[in-house]
Amino acid sequence: MSLAVRNAAVDGARVGLRVADDRITAIGADVEAEPGDDVIDAAGMALVPGLVNGHTHAAMTLMRGYGADLPLMQWLQDKIFPVEAKLTSDDVYWGTRLACVEMIRSGTVRFWDMYWQPEAVARAVEEAGIRASVALPLVDGLDAGKSDALRADAERSLDALAGAGRRITPTLGPHSIYLVSEKSLQSVAELSSERNLPVHIHLSETEGEVRDCLSAHGVRPAAYLDRIGVLTPRTILAHGVWLDDDELTLVGERGATIVTNPVSNLKLAVGGVFPYAKARGHGVPVGLGTDGASSNNSLDLFQDMKHLALIQKHAERDPAAMPATEAWAVATGQRALLLGQRARLAVGEPADFLLVRSDAPELTPGDLVPNLVYAAAGAVVDTTVVAGRVLMRGGVIPDEDEVHDGAQASARRLGVIT
Amino acid sequence: MSLAVRNAAVDGARVGLRVADDRITAIGADVEAEPGDDVIDAAGMALVPGLVNGHTHAAMTLMRGYGADLPLMQWLQDKIFPVEAKLTSDDVYWGTRLACVEMIRSGTVRFWDMYWQPEAVARAVEEAGIRASVALPLVDGLDAGKSDALRADAERSLDALAGAGRRITPTLGPHSIYLVSEKSLQSVAELSSERNLPVHIHLSETEGEVRDCLSAHGVRPAAYLDRIGVLTPRTILAHGVWLDDDELTLVGERGATIVTNPVSNLKLAVGGVFPYAKARGHGVPVGLGTDGASSNNSLDLFQDMKHLALIQKHAERDPAAMPATEAWAVATGQRALLLGQRARLAVGEPADFLLVRSDAPELTPGDLVPNLVYAAAGAVVDTTVVAGRVLMRGGVIPDEDEVHDGAQASARRLGVIT
Repeated sequence: MSLAVRNAAVDGARVGLRVADDRITAIGADVEAEPGDDVIDAAGMALVPGLVNGHTHAAMTLMRGYGADLPLMQWLQDKIFPVEAKLTSDDVYWGTRLACVEMIRSGTVRFWDMYWQPEAVARAVEEAGIRASVALPLVDGLDAGKSDALRADAERSLDALAGAGRRITPTLGPHSIYLVSEKSLQSVAELSSERNLPVHIHLSETEGEVRDCLSAHGVRPAAYLDRIGVLTPRTILAHGVWLDDDELTLVGERGATIVTNPVSNLKLAVGGVFPYAKARGHGVPVGLGTDGASSNNSLDLFQDMKHLALIQKHAERDPAAMPATEAWAVATGQRALLLGQRARLAVGEPADFLLVRSDAPELTPGDLVPNLVYAAAGAVVDTTVVAGRVLMRGGVIPDEDEVHDGAQASARRLGVIT
Repeated sequence: MSLAVRNAAVDGARVGLRVADDRITAIGADVEAEPGDDVIDAAGMALVPGLVNGHTHAAMTLMRGYGADLPLMQWLQDKIFPVEAKLTSDDVYWGTRLACVEMIRSGTVRFWDMYWQPEAVARAVEEAGIRASVALPLVDGLDAGKSDALRADAERSLDALAGAGRRITPTLGPHSIYLVSEKSLQSVAELSSERNLPVHIHLSETEGEVRDCLSAHGVRPAAYLDRIGVLTPRTILAHGVWLDDDELTLVGERGATIVTNPVSNLKLAVGGVFPYAKARGHGVPVGLGTDGASSNNSLDLFQDMKHLALIQKHAERDPAAMPATEAWAVATGQRALLLGQRARLAVGEPADFLLVRSDAPELTPGDLVPNLVYAAAGAVVDTTVVAGRVLMRGGVIPDEDEVHDGAQASARRLGVIT
């Protein structure tokens, strides 16, 4: 199976592109379609890399808007936890499929997930055609006695993902330092090291977490993780809002990645803003995430790119802070290679790309990247290609209606909607 | 000419709606189309009021993304002012048409504009079919000797708008207290009073403006305006970021409206956040604006609604602050009647409304209003009706291509694009 794209614009020049299997095999002004190619005419469209969602809980689309605007603990205890207690594997499958539809529509080609029933997540990802890191949330309620059980859970989740295809990255997901004991974190660090697996953990989302860590362990969260051996180049720290200068130095030295989730942080009113410029100054790789749809409530990273840029300008009191080119680099994964995307459209690279409607009114006139960051939403995406497969073309995802109905049925069964 | 909408959802119930001329003539469960009606089948869609953009400079779409991320003064002096010096009436027409396309696509039915060549703005508004308040920016560079000339400009702009249709509200647009002398502001206040005209002015956008006002006039900006007689129920104050408690009390007592522009304020890094809860506590009517496309850079109010809610939650450190229902009320004009829209879908009301695709993945599942505020962008709008005329249907605006080409040609002529 081969695919050809004709007449796409790249930096104002017209290019053609060919794909065989999951790789780009040719790209340039004189590249033409060949007999047997599936041909996309991209006249009026720009060719750009896809976006990477570095932190989400995809199946939480099922709880979108559920208990909107409640205080955090009331929202979790009265709304989210009771629904999660009822989740079946099928629910997670449909919630993840719905998330994949929303992400594919808005140009995301890869996401880093942490959610229950990872085999159902993986099944949804396989069928949707997108790429994902899949991690079961590992939790022991700070009870070191449950450490062996946590390790067994982790291994079972890896076994369940062992047969997954190349688009899936099995990942360890210790939830956080406030829901996982030191002993279990050590065990996860060992497993990550033995099997060379990424570790995806929430860190330093709220000030309370920092206070509790200081009082329980005498050090701040990043130092605590480092002491246990969790801070490595394989580690993704979601949030990192309250990391101080010493912690950012340490994270930079260890080569761990931070994924910032500006919309979720604002919506849950955690109070702080991730110190992007300082983190980069210490060499920290940084990615962008939406967090789950129930604390955003969108999975459209185009919108989150804008929030990222604006809140950094606001926090720095500098309109020149976080320019559009930088926000675009973060959202496409170029500032954090662990996220798995080099965002290079060149021969031999994975065929993960978008065609965006550059004649949309919100992209008229002006430069593409500033317009994508500040003026667009995900609806400018016309075509999404992942691993050489066309997942959306002309704004159409073939099985979208079936996914919509499946997710609605799950939400109804769970009592989220009537 | 009559229009009928069938099978639309309102609060979960199925309704029909009929329109004659520019008014709703029937709405309810048993309302059916009649012979000769233009019929829209709204199955799968929800019927909601349109949005009101309370502050913009529409034709600045031509400068979208131009000089993105430069510091404010450098951006104005090196980029914006030189282009504005070259603007012709045709440029303003095409820039405003482009803005209207973007607004109609994203559900805005009325906007409050302040820009050069108001007769060109009015022509664009008439042809686009939207509603607008049109104001020429009045500027005398703080030179009271130019006050008569400013008054003459104001009167000429009103004369030019005298023949405009009912969808256009002629408005006085003294730019700001830092570009208009006290004598000219007095003259504008008199004209507003004599002819019962709205006054649209920038106020308290930056801390510097407050400092300068204190040092020049011994009082803060709102008190200064009040002393001159500009603070009335006919007045719209754009921004109001730095108004203090006493000023908010005064604005509330005088019944003037504040239009907050959260995206522009964040993008230009003015440093503060409009104190919404305090303003409402003092009874101040509040609306939402995008500001011009060159400091946003989008005119999609759906996105600005989310920014409004998030930045208020952040500033108040309270996830329950500015709930979705409140953000929706602000964006639809319900918190500021001067903006001209009651947002009531009832018999006798203006036929200004939207049909939104409630089966879009980002609106699935969950409650409509939280989903519209937190999960949607303007692309969920399928149909936009203003004054009984269908401006967009099924996502199609009939003359969009012509507007795109006209605006591109203007941008090219102005040197904004090559």
